[in-house]
Amino acid sequence: MGSLLTVSLDAMGGDHGLPVTVPAAIASLAEHPNLALILVGDQDKIREELSKHNYPDSDRMQVQHASQIVEMDDKPAQAMRFKKDSSMRVAINLVKEGRASACVSAGNTGALMATARFVLKMLPGIDRPAICGLLPTIPGFCHMLDMGANVDSSADNLFEFAVMGSVLASAVNNIDKPSVALLNIGEEEIKGNEVIKEASRLLSDSQLNYVGYVEGDGVYQGKANVVVCDGFNGNIALKASEGVAKMISFKIKQAFTKNIFTKMVAVLTMPVLNSFRKTIDPRRYNGASLLGLQGIAIKSHGGADVLAFKTAINQALIEIENRVPERISEQLEALLVNQREDV
Amino acid sequence: MGSLLTVSLDAMGGDHGLPVTVPAAIASLAEHPNLALILVGDQDKIREELSKHNYPDSDRMQVQHASQIVEMDDKPAQAMRFKKDSSMRVAINLVKEGRASACVSAGNTGALMATARFVLKMLPGIDRPAICGLLPTIPGFCHMLDMGANVDSSADNLFEFAVMGSVLASAVNNIDKPSVALLNIGEEEIKGNEVIKEASRLLSDSQLNYVGYVEGDGVYQGKANVVVCDGFNGNIALKASEGVAKMISFKIKQAFTKNIFTKMVAVLTMPVLNSFRKTIDPRRYNGASLLGLQGIAIKSHGGADVLAFKTAINQALIEIENRVPERISEQLEALLVNQREDV
Repeated sequence: MGSLLTVSLDAMGGDHGLPVTVPAAIASLAEHPNLALILVGDQDKIREELSKHNYPDSDRMQVQHASQIVEMDDKPAQAMRFKKDSSMRVAINLVKEGRASACVSAGNTGALMATARFVLKMLPGIDRPAICGLLPTIPGFCHMLDMGANVDSSADNLFEFAVMGSVLASAVNNIDKPSVALLNIGEEEIKGNEVIKEASRLLSDSQLNYVGYVEGDGVYQGKANVVVCDGFNGNIALKASEGVAKMISFKIKQAFTKNIFTKMVAVLTMPVLNSFRKTIDPRRYNGASLLGLQGIAIKSHGGADVLAFKTAINQALIEIENRVPERISEQLEALLVNQREDV
Repeated sequence: MGSLLTVSLDAMGGDHGLPVTVPAAIASLAEHPNLALILVGDQDKIREELSKHNYPDSDRMQVQHASQIVEMDDKPAQAMRFKKDSSMRVAINLVKEGRASACVSAGNTGALMATARFVLKMLPGIDRPAICGLLPTIPGFCHMLDMGANVDSSADNLFEFAVMGSVLASAVNNIDKPSVALLNIGEEEIKGNEVIKEASRLLSDSQLNYVGYVEGDGVYQGKANVVVCDGFNGNIALKASEGVAKMISFKIKQAFTKNIFTKMVAVLTMPVLNSFRKTIDPRRYNGASLLGLQGIAIKSHGGADVLAFKTAINQALIEIENRVPERISEQLEALLVNQREDV
């Protein structure tokens, strides 16, 4: 049993809670023989949900009681102060105590970020954590950060995000020198505000594979493996992208249900449209990494279903196997040594 | 001839220039009997292009010579200083001189913005101009501003954008009290930075139909007629949206060309997919308004084709007919009077 990698799950978090987290946990254990899970939350309710699936406690499926739940509209400070026995907090505590190597939550993003930062602490040399997500692109996918941990960031913060994103891409996707771009409103050097220009100078002078500015459409053309931006812009871009994708699938559905002819065509087209949908299915990209912490914490989309939550658990496992926090520290150290040698 | 409404066109601007602007001009005149156009640029080349279409000069299709062209990568200040006889500048001058009631250009956005502001001047009470574009949404469309005229905006600027967008929506689309929202990273009151919070307070206290914050996905769900944001975020959202739409249409094409079966399905599906594409065709939404100026200036997408450029000319005509600049002044005045009465 020594080779098991343990992930703690905030079993109560998200829009759906146990009906999603428990089946996702069961499916994940079936897929990954080296995975163990600790389900954190109301132990009676968790066991009831497990018994619905005829699934007993085991070494690989432990239950850890927590009496409180962080609600989606709780303010981060309130959650930290008044919900010290929440499923979210206890799941993170398990990582701090070394009983789990990573935690996953579909709960309140702000509370998760604040709690993870407070409990796990920042990596030395990193000023602020960032939320790093995976986006589909024409050639494949890219990592984008920050997606909303910070509402405004300095040039130094953006530089740190670039380091963290670069490490994640190389560790998780075996990309040797991941290309890194800054999200901006134009690719020309003259555009953008002072913070972005300064960040661009820092990145140009670094050992990172910095490829310059990228606009929103360049992101989806796959112009970089890692796209760096402040949390406000990252979140705006992410949500606008989600909105367009939803609108397009609504309009496609509308076009196919217009009349009897289009409905007949729809039946024939279904397999093709399904194969297309799979390539941009957000559930296959679920599980954003909270980077910059002394530990691994994964944020699942609040509305995640079983498949999506399973993807987030998988992301946690990949980051454990690839020692992501340790590698961020090492890379940061190496970059700083290089910079000192350059001087 | 007294009832003709005249629009000046920067005939040389954009990625394609005359092969797009001239056919679009001819088609626009055929569609709108009350429209007259002044084509501005190299007169020999314009007449050559017109003769290809067997189209003579007339009262409704005049040619105005301009010896220079603003390139897409010219810096705004350089264009202003060294290209005083550019097709863009002369087209704007014609509005200032009263020979045209609006101008349209597919040229360099920064140069167009700077030149229009310098020549036409701001409306009294408006601090900064904004670029207002039309976006498709699930129920129809919405106006979004600023899309990139300013890289950072104060709360007062955002308030002015809201007034201008609201006037445009009510004047152009006959919406009585257009709903106005602020683009933010969350709908909860606690989120967002200080500028947005302050703008939200200003809008809540105003006579505008302010409906609160909206996220990127809410924009496409049609939660507001007018979405207000600073130019950086607006541009990020716009470009990300374009990127996703392009990626999705690429992936759809890919799915339909996979093998002989999918290709056969594609033939059947074509009419349905085409009717879907029409509803989100960016060419049908081309023509962003430069608002806040003492005159009407329309920015066409640089890559516009004939249909798209014709849409931009149409937008100019609609704004003339609806006296958009005058109505912005009136509405601003009315809002300020109401505020004074409230005190």
